[in-house]
Parts: sequence; C-alpha cells; structure tokens
Amino acid sequence: MRFFSDNAAPVCPQVLEALARVNVLDTAYDGDRWSQQLDGAFSDLFETPVRTLWVPSGTSANALALAALCPPHGSVVCHRDAHIQNDECGAPEFYTHGAKLALAEGVGAKLTPDSVIAVLDRVQQGVHWVQPHAISITNATEYGLVYTPGEVAAISEVAKARALGLHMDGARFANAVAHLGCAPGDVTWRAGVDVLSFGFVKNGGMSAEALIFFQTELADATLYRRKRAGLLLSKGRYLAAQLLAMLEDDLWLANARAANAGAQLLAQAAADRLVHPVEANEVFLKVTPDEAASLRRLGFDFHDWAPGEVRLVTSWDQSEAAIRPLADAIAAL
Amino acid sequence: MRFFSDNAAPVCPQVLEALARVNVLDTAYDGDRWSQQLDGAFSDLFETPVRTLWVPSGTSANALALAALCPPHGSVVCHRDAHIQNDECGAPEFYTHGAKLALAEGVGAKLTPDSVIAVLDRVQQGVHWVQPHAISITNATEYGLVYTPGEVAAISEVAKARALGLHMDGARFANAVAHLGCAPGDVTWRAGVDVLSFGFVKNGGMSAEALIFFQTELADATLYRRKRAGLLLSKGRYLAAQLLAMLEDDLWLANARAANAGAQLLAQAAADRLVHPVEANEVFLKVTPDEAASLRRLGFDFHDWAPGEVRLVTSWDQSEAAIRPLADAIAAL
Amino acid sequence: MRFFSDNAAPVCPQVLEALARVNVLDTAYDGDRWSQQLDGAFSDLFETPVRTLWVPSGTSANALALAALCPPHGSVVCHRDAHIQNDECGAPEFYTHGAKLALAEGVGAKLTPDSVIAVLDRVQQGVHWVQPHAISITNATEYGLVYTPGEVAAISEVAKARALGLHMDGARFANAVAHLGCAPGDVTWRAGVDVLSFGFVKNGGMSAEALIFFQTELADATLYRRKRAGLLLSKGRYLAAQLLAMLEDDLWLANARAANAGAQLLAQAAADRLVHPVEANEVFLKVTPDEAASLRRLGFDFHDWAPGEVRLVTSWDQSEAAIRPLADAIAAL
Amino acid sequence: MRFFSDNAAPVCPQVLEALARVNVLDTAYDGDRWSQQLDGAFSDLFETPVRTLWVPSGTSANALALAALCPPHGSVVCHRDAHIQNDECGAPEFYTHGAKLALAEGVGAKLTPDSVIAVLDRVQQGVHWVQPHAISITNATEYGLVYTPGEVAAISEVAKARALGLHMDGARFANAVAHLGCAPGDVTWRAGVDVLSFGFVKNGGMSAEALIFFQTELADATLYRRKRAGLLLSKGRYLAAQLLAMLEDDLWLANARAANAGAQLLAQAAADRLVHPVEANEVFLKVTPDEAASLRRLGFDFHDWAPGEVRLVTSWDQSEAAIRPLADAIAAL
Repeated sequence: MRFFSDNAAPVCPQVLEALARVNVLDTAYDGDRWSQQLDGAFSDLFETPVRTLWVPSGTSANALALAALCPPHGSVVCHRDAHIQNDECGAPEFYTHGAKLALAEGVGAKLTPDSVIAVLDRVQQGVHWVQPHAISITNATEYGLVYTPGEVAAISEVAKARALGLHMDGARFANAVAHLGCAPGDVTWRAGVDVLSFGFVKNGGMSAEALIFFQTELADATLYRRKRAGLLLSKGRYLAAQLLAMLEDDLWLANARAANAGAQLLAQAAADRLVHPVEANEVFLKVTPDEAASLRRLGFDFHDWAPGEVRLVTSWDQSEAAIRPLADAIAAL
Repeated sequence: MRFFSDNAAPVCPQVLEALARVNVLDTAYDGDRWSQQLDGAFSDLFETPVRTLWVPSGTSANALALAALCPPHGSVVCHRDAHIQNDECGAPEFYTHGAKLALAEGVGAKLTPDSVIAVLDRVQQGVHWVQPHAISITNATEYGLVYTPGEVAAISEVAKARALGLHMDGARFANAVAHLGCAPGDVTWRAGVDVLSFGFVKNGGMSAEALIFFQTELADATLYRRKRAGLLLSKGRYLAAQLLAMLEDDLWLANARAANAGAQLLAQAAADRLVHPVEANEVFLKVTPDEAASLRRLGFDFHDWAPGEVRLVTSWDQSEAAIRPLADAIAAL
Repeated sequence: MRFFSDNAAPVCPQVLEALARVNVLDTAYDGDRWSQQLDGAFSDLFETPVRTLWVPSGTSANALALAALCPPHGSVVCHRDAHIQNDECGAPEFYTHGAKLALAEGVGAKLTPDSVIAVLDRVQQGVHWVQPHAISITNATEYGLVYTPGEVAAISEVAKARALGLHMDGARFANAVAHLGCAPGDVTWRAGVDVLSFGFVKNGGMSAEALIFFQTELADATLYRRKRAGLLLSKGRYLAAQLLAMLEDDLWLANARAANAGAQLLAQAAADRLVHPVEANEVFLKVTPDEAASLRRLGFDFHDWAPGEVRLVTSWDQSEAAIRPLADAIAAL
Repeated sequence: MRFFSDNAAPVCPQVLEALARVNVLDTAYDGDRWSQQLDGAFSDLFETPVRTLWVPSGTSANALALAALCPPHGSVVCHRDAHIQNDECGAPEFYTHGAKLALAEGVGAKLTPDSVIAVLDRVQQGVHWVQPHAISITNATEYGLVYTPGEVAAISEVAKARALGLHMDGARFANAVAHLGCAPGDVTWRAGVDVLSFGFVKNGGMSAEALIFFQTELADATLYRRKRAGLLLSKGRYLAAQLLAMLEDDLWLANARAANAGAQLLAQAAADRLVHPVEANEVFLKVTPDEAASLRRLGFDFHDWAPGEVRLVTSWDQSEAAIRPLADAIAAL
C-alpha cells in the first residue's frame, strides 16, 4: 500500500520477458539487432525521423540532452522546482561542464512564455553574462501538471525567436500523453521540442530510458558523450529490449493510463484538499500532520512534500482495488 | 561459434532469475534491501571491511575510481595499452575533470615497478608539471596476463613511497583470481590496492559492476559523483541482485574458471603461435591473413588485433565442446 | 567627468614606478624576489601568517578561492546579486568544475545569518541534492555597503556550525576597510574568513590582485590550479611589484579613502535620492530618465542600474574638485 | 650573464612607455580605444582579416585556442615534447574540459605529415576511441627549430584532409619569422594555420600575448571562454598597449632578430657540440657535467636539459658584447 514513488514499483512482466528473449549471443554495446531497431521504432511512434539512444537513467538522459543544447559558458532556463535543478546533484552542470540553470517561475512548476521571457530579459548582452542557450520543461511537471501541445508551442516560439534549444524532461512523458490523448509527436516535435528524455523506468521499466533527438544532428556528438560518461553499457541489448517491449502494443500508454486512473481516484476522494489539479499520476494534498499520521497508521506510505502537504504517487501496477482503500481513507479524514 | 568478445555472451541464468526474484515493491535508488547487503557481502568475500557501489558499466567504475584518487590537476600512471587510455573515449578525463594519463611501458600490458618509476622520475617537481597522484593497473591485463599478489605488492610499494593511490581495473578480475587460485583479498587490499573495479558483466552478468573501496573513506564523495553522473539508477535492486547472484556459491569464480579453461584449450592447440602466455580468457595468436580468413570461413568470429595477430576471447558459457572445433582448426592451420 | 566604473580610472603613479623599478633581470613566474616577498608583506598587514598568490583579475581570484573551498558536486551560498553569480560569465562554475551557486536574499546585497540559513535549510541531506560547502560574501557589497566585523563573524558562525568555508570577495576590500577604520584582520580572519580576494585594480592598480589564504593549507592545490588556468604569468615580478607598491605607506588605504570621500560628497548632495546608504565608493540614486539625461548633458557619465536608478562610482584619483560639479548638479536637480 | 630563460629578461622600454601613454581614463575590459585597434593592427600585419584577443599568458592563449578547436571528447595531436603537453600543468585539459593530447614523434620536436598520420591512423573510428579534432605545432619548436611555410603547409594538408583544426603555438613566433625572413602570413594562414598563439612576453613584452584567429568565427565563443576563465582583465588597455607597442616599427621583429643573432654567436662557438641546428634563440649543447660546472663558475646561468645536455636561451636585450663571453667560454671548453 505504497504511494511513495513510482520508482518503488516493480518492473512489468513484459519487460522481464523481453530480457529473457534477448538473452542470446549478439554484438556488444549498441551494435546488437535490438538497439539497431530503436531509431525505427521511435520514428514510427513519433511519425518523424528521430535518433534514439538508450541510457540507464533519467538523470543521464536529461544531462546528455542539455549538453547537446548548451555550451559550458551558457545557461538553460528551467523552472525553479525542476528536477534538473533540485534532484540530480548537479548532473546538468557536470555534463555541460558548468553551464548554469537560470530559474524561472510558474504555477505548478510550469513555465510560461512570460515567465521565460522575464528570465531572458534580465540577461544583458555581452561576455560578462552567461547567455541562455536552451529552455528545459518537464512534462508532466514535478507537480503532476501536463503541458498541452499549445502551451509547449508557445514556449517554443520564445525559444525559436531567441535561438534557444528546447528540451523536454519526460520522466513521466507517458503519463502526460495518456492525459492529453494526443499523438506523442503533437506535444513534442510538432510543438517545437528538439530533444526529449522519454522515461520508461517509472512506468514499469527496469533500467532503460530513451533519449530522443528530433534535431537528429545533435545525436552524433551525444554518442561520444554517452560513451565518455560510462553510459554505453556493454550488453546494450538488455536496455534496447526493455524499450521495445514497452512500445509493443502501446504498453507504455496502457501502463500510464493505469497510473493516471489511480491518481484520479485519489483526486476525487481528495476534493478541495488538492494543491494542484491532478493530470498525471501525482496527487498533492493538504493534510494536517495528524491526518498524515492517521493515514500512515492505516499502512499508507507517502512523501511529506512541504509543511501541511503530502505527495501521493500512483504506479502502473496499482489496480482500482489497490487504490480504493487510500481513496476511502482520504475521504474519511 | 564466436570468440569476438565476452560482452557478446548471454547473461547467465542465475542472474536473470535474481532479477525476477527482486521484482517486488521496494525503495528506490540504493536504499533497497539488496543494495544494502552489498557492503556486507563483499566485505565477507574480501575478508576486510569494504564499501561497495554498484554501477552499470566498467567504464564508469574505472572513471569513478580514478576521480576518487586523482585531482583535476594530477595524473594517473597506467600502461600505454590500458583500457582506460584506449577504449573509454576519455571517461577518466571526464570524471576527473581533466587529469592526465601518464603512459608507462611493460610486456603484456603489465606495469612493473621499474616502468612506473621511469614515468614518475620524468616528472619534475613544481606547478608547471602535472604531478602523479595514482597508478592504475588492469588485472587480468588487456592481453590476458595476470598480476600475481607479489607483483601487485611491488607496484604498491612504489605507490606508497610516492603517496600515490592504487587502482585495479578488474574488468576480468574473476578470470585473474581463477587463474591465481588465491583469495580475492590477496591480490587486492593485502597487496596494497585502494580501489577495485570488480567486473561482472563480461563474466555472465547483465548490467552491474561493483566498485569496491578498500580505502573506505573514499566512498563518501564517490556517492555524490555517482549520482551526479546519472549512474544512480532509480531501481537499484535490479543491479544489486545481479551482484549478489554472482557471489552466491561463488558463481563468479565458476564462470571465470569455465572461460579460462576454454582459453587453455585454445592455447594448447596454438602452441608457438601464442603472442602472450594465456592466463585468463584471452588468446592472442600469430596468424597470416590467409589463415585468419580460413578460420573465418569455418564460421569462427574474432578480432583482428594487429597485422598478423588476432584475439580470441572465451566466455563463461562455452563448454569444451563449444571450444574444441576452433582448437582443432587452429591446430590444423 | 566620469562616474561609470572604478575600472576606468588610470593606474596610480606609484604602481607604474614600481614596474620600472623591477624592470631588471630576475627569475620567471613567481620565483622572483618580489613575488617571494608577498607572503611576508601580507602576513604583516593581516597580523597573521597568510599565503598570498598574485593573479591578474578579480574574477580569477574569486574563482580560485571557490575552487579551493568547494568540490564539483557542492554549492556555494552567495547573494542573489553577487558579482560571482551575475558578472563573471560562469567563472565559478568553470573553476569548480560545475559547483552550483545557491542564491540567498538580503538588503543591499548583504547576506545575514538568517538569509544564509534559509538557503541551507532548504537542502535535504543525501546524494540527490547538491550540498553546500562554502559561503561567499562581498565586502564592500555590489551596492556599496560594508559588512562590519561583527556581521562577518555572525555569518562565519553559521559557516563553522555547518562545516562550510567562508570566502570574501574583496574587489573593493580597501574601500570597506577605509570605511570601517578597523585593522584588515578584524574584518577577515578574526571574523572567520578563510580566503580573501583582495582587490587592487579598481583602487589604482593595473593588473594584479591578491588571493589571500588565511587557511594557509588551501594554497597548495591552488598553486596548481593557478598554473593550469594560465594565470601564472611568466614575468610575475610585474604583478608582485604592483601589490607591494600598493602596500607601501598604506597607499591602498589612502586611495580607498579618497574614493570613499568622493562618494560621501555625492551622497550629501543626493540626500533622499539615495537607494542605499553610502559606505564605500558607490552611490545609487533614484533619478527620473529626464534627470539622468540632464546630468549626462552636463558631461557626467554613469551606469543605468535599473529603471529610475543610476549608479555612480568614484575613484582613487578624483579630488573634491573633480567631484564637486556632479554633487552640485545632483543637488540642483 | 644569464641564459636560463627569455622570461627572465626585462621588458623593453617601448612597452613600458606605452603603459604610461595609455594611463588615462578609458573604458574597462576590452572596450578601450587600444584594445579596439588590435583587430586592425594584426589584420594589417597578417594581410588578412583576423580576430585578435589579448590574454595575459602564453598558456592561456594556447589553451583557449585548443578549446576553440577541440570538443571535450576529442584529441589534439601534438609532439611528445610540446609545451602544451609538458609544461602547462594540464591547461589544455582544463580549458577543453578533458580533451586528450595524442603524442606524436619527430626530430627536434617537429611534427611531420608522417608522424601525424602515424598517430591518426592508430585511432579506430567509433565512439570508444577519442577522435582527433586538431593538430598543434610549436614554431619555433621547444628545441629552437623553425617550421618553414612549406612544412606547415604539408601538415595542414593532413589536417584539412581529416577535417582537423591547426593551431600554432607561437611563444617564439617572432624568432621563427625572424629566422625565416618571410611575411608572418606566409607561415600561418597561407600555410593553413587556423589559430595562432602569438607570443610577445618572451620577446620583450610584460604581460600580454595575442591570440589570433584566422578562422575568425572561432573568436566569438572564445570571448566567453576568456571572460569565464578570469582572463578578461578589467583594465585591458594596459595589455593592448603592449601589443601595439611591439608592432610599432616592427619592434617585435627587431627584438627577435637580436635574440636570434645572440644564439648564432653561441652556435658558431659551439660547433659540433650542438644537439640541434640553431634557428631561433635556443641553443642545446652537449657538455659534460664538469664542463657545465666550469661554465657556471664563470657566472653563466642555464638550464640542465638532460643528462649531458644543457639549454642556453638568448634574449632580445642581449648585445653581442653580452653574449661574447659565453661564446668564448664555450669555444674554450
């Protein structure tokens, strides 16, 4: 009965089966027949030619993406509460060799054109000031909100006008797409995204994320950065297989829909306790310490987010029956 | 019938089974119950308290080890043919923020005290010259030779006399220990090694290597570097489980013995074609291009190492029956 | 009639004369007899043993100081408006290999124990979060305010309690000391400062700043970092000579007093137009665009700081007669 | 009577006079009227449009040049005895964020097309191997030999064929040009050089070197790197003035000719003791320890280069009369 993190959930069976299926002799690194299918499979999914690199973590996907978009002497505009700023121990700075993150405001950890422009306009031209080179947004955001294609496109317009790259941290991209009901391409490249960190691990995967380049020429140098970072695992087929298994029959979407549905169940029970609208698989609730304690006594595990506020995360493997007890307990507070 | 690389071999069944076994709810990152067992399990194996970090690749293990031993303005002495110098796309330079590798000579990619001292003595004291801070040796070496405990201790003496750290790249550490028949501690910390990259992937693992700190205080900052590099996978139990499975009943040793035995079979057939003595699971042969072509026509796959020289690598999963045809073909050349 | 920047002022004659005086044969780099005097001269000035490195710029002094105090995976707490954050194009990130600056609030660009603690307390323990390793304060601040010894000591208490280093950016340290009337040691090491960037260029020097280590053991690695950054000029005597000339007969203090006096003259004229109290050699005024334009028509040059706000900087070489016309013009607005 | 280093020589009077001449109010950093003249003055000298940045040291010029030509995951081919490899404490690695130097052979520290190709051909294609991105040559070399325009062009042909940049470390460029008697453009851009570190300090300057971009578009990002490294001194007119003074009436050439002439005097006396032909202002002699000692007893100071070998360096300020005693002493050995 845990709602602590979608990283705590087990791996879905199709992924484990895929590992067994590729457990045969093949070429090392990413030369194997499964790794070689990734560009094609993701190009199909996104309905445009993409370059796809497997990596073993979302942090490394994000950091490689930013290194592809921003030189060491540049900056990346992101939300003050972005994962890349707060939860990656400086990975962006490591991979970019010291670029800065320029922090913007926005409700629910969502940037807007105005909040981005406010940051951009504070920077004077000239060598004394770190110049912005990219914008990074998270979809779904750290508070479970989802950027629509239109919202992304509006930010992209700012990016294009200022010659900035646009990165999307999609650790919960599946949940965002499941919520939107749009094509994956609609909220990414069609809306101006250049690079996407497409997360699978929180969504039932084990150890493989996809780094997707819509600006395909950015992938070349990234291949060197991936190797140089020790991220080019020697038996890459076991990563590629996970991604392919998740794409098969849109398993990634089914898993995300399940997690989102669980969150909706909680949201309905929570009513006016909600801190943010619930759009993906995260639910932020206003509860008193006593109420939090009483929920924990019932066996529910979750994260204290801020004073008087807790975070509940639902996962791909939680059925309505698994969620219902918590929903009831919240309603009964 | 491939002898191209031990990375091409499949994962051994016990490792896959372990993945299934840990496929339950648990804490994220390395807080889970299996990750928490690593320090204990490896301390038992090495008969001394160690700190153990799982990482997803040998390159990242090596690079983190060097970053723990050498500042950005220092150098690491290694063999001219070392993997860290030649095959990691500059990972040591990335993780150390630009330390240099100082290249030493030695037969069979083995350093000796004299070859190390020759490099050290070329460096003048003072800020104009990059000062050595560590030595890195590979055991078994890139040419399949094995350092004995005595040989390691002799190098360690040089290291200690000059206040240098000592790292062992053990991508094929299992093969070395299987050859030596000694305790793992004998050829590492008892011989003065400070940090060991203990490889499992080439030996039947999937995606987990162990970074072992005998100088345990070096682990603290390394935990930050691992996270910052995007190497702290969010579902760490699937890495820890691999390592624990390999330790169970000394599977790692059994696998290495099998691979070494295969190499011995080839070595006997090769006789005076051998470029190096065969001590681990690599066999380097003098063959003419015509001979190489004829072996390939028979279906054997291997690496052209140098003009007139090929490399054969045997794996944990190759039985005598699997090796015999190549041995016979070599003998028949 | 310029009040744009103290960097625009010429070099004071004693410094130029010192260059001529050392224009003889001597050893290269910092082995010459003048460079060798720096530790002694600054130890005398600070009444404690210090290590002193000349560097050619304030930015490099600051960046080397931070690199000595903070690892790549750490952070430095500084004011949101600090020079190291805003005006050095990411030099701290370059020299520290990607450490973060954690931004704190405070009136007049001054940190307080509370504003520092507010930043520190937002950081959770553990490897996911960049941990603070140092605090950097600017004295005089970017708005010309001066930290008293007591204020520095209060921040140092926080630093010591959390095991953080304490750096002082003293680009206008002379102006601060001139204002305080205290011994240089009172507002630095006696108040807990570990490293000081002691600026001379804005105060009549040409191209030499002093990096002062009160924690003397931090200097050793810094010598390597200075060389590695190309900052160890080959004819170092021409830098050392500048610093020694500025110390001679307390020229540095006399120059700073002159600049401060000019600022006071302006402050008196400005009355309630002052944005900040005037303590060093910077004056921030509220003026309308029309008023600013009328001052410029009179030949006065200055920096538009913010809407409705301008910055005037006085220099070591400006006599009362040189300042008076601007003071009168301001009073007459 | 010193022949230890051309860095030990004093600054030539015209440079000091220039400092006095610019000692007036002007804009900070490189906005002043003298810094603004550099592009024009050096474009005239080189007979092609160039971008010119002053920097305070040769090491920083070299390191910025390499950072402009090589990404962090690349390598720069240079001679095994190059200054960038041996004497800069890893500055190239710092500024390039960890690129490697790939070491080539060659008599007298001179690369040849063949020695470069030998290094290039050892690198396999693919992400496992650090790929070469640039070649760096030193003219005059560390052993005082001079590349002719034809020799540079031959190396440039290799560079262009492999899409590599070409850097020239011209710490003693003036001595090289003085020896060649060619136009400065002949041995640089006309021969395919992309970036030149044009040294002035060893040749009578004080603290300013010129970084010359023939590939002018490379200068843009370098301006940011220069600032970020703390190399953009705030009173830049005192650096620009040095360079302009050295160009005035070809002072740089006159100084270099004087130093070269001194070396020739020594070379004639040395006869068959010469280790290398003497082309610039360095003389390497075979002498026994006893002979070296006897020269030192006569008051001559020089560098022990290797067992049985010493280095003598002549400077811009040494007349024939100043050199003659050493020449005689060598002849008399």
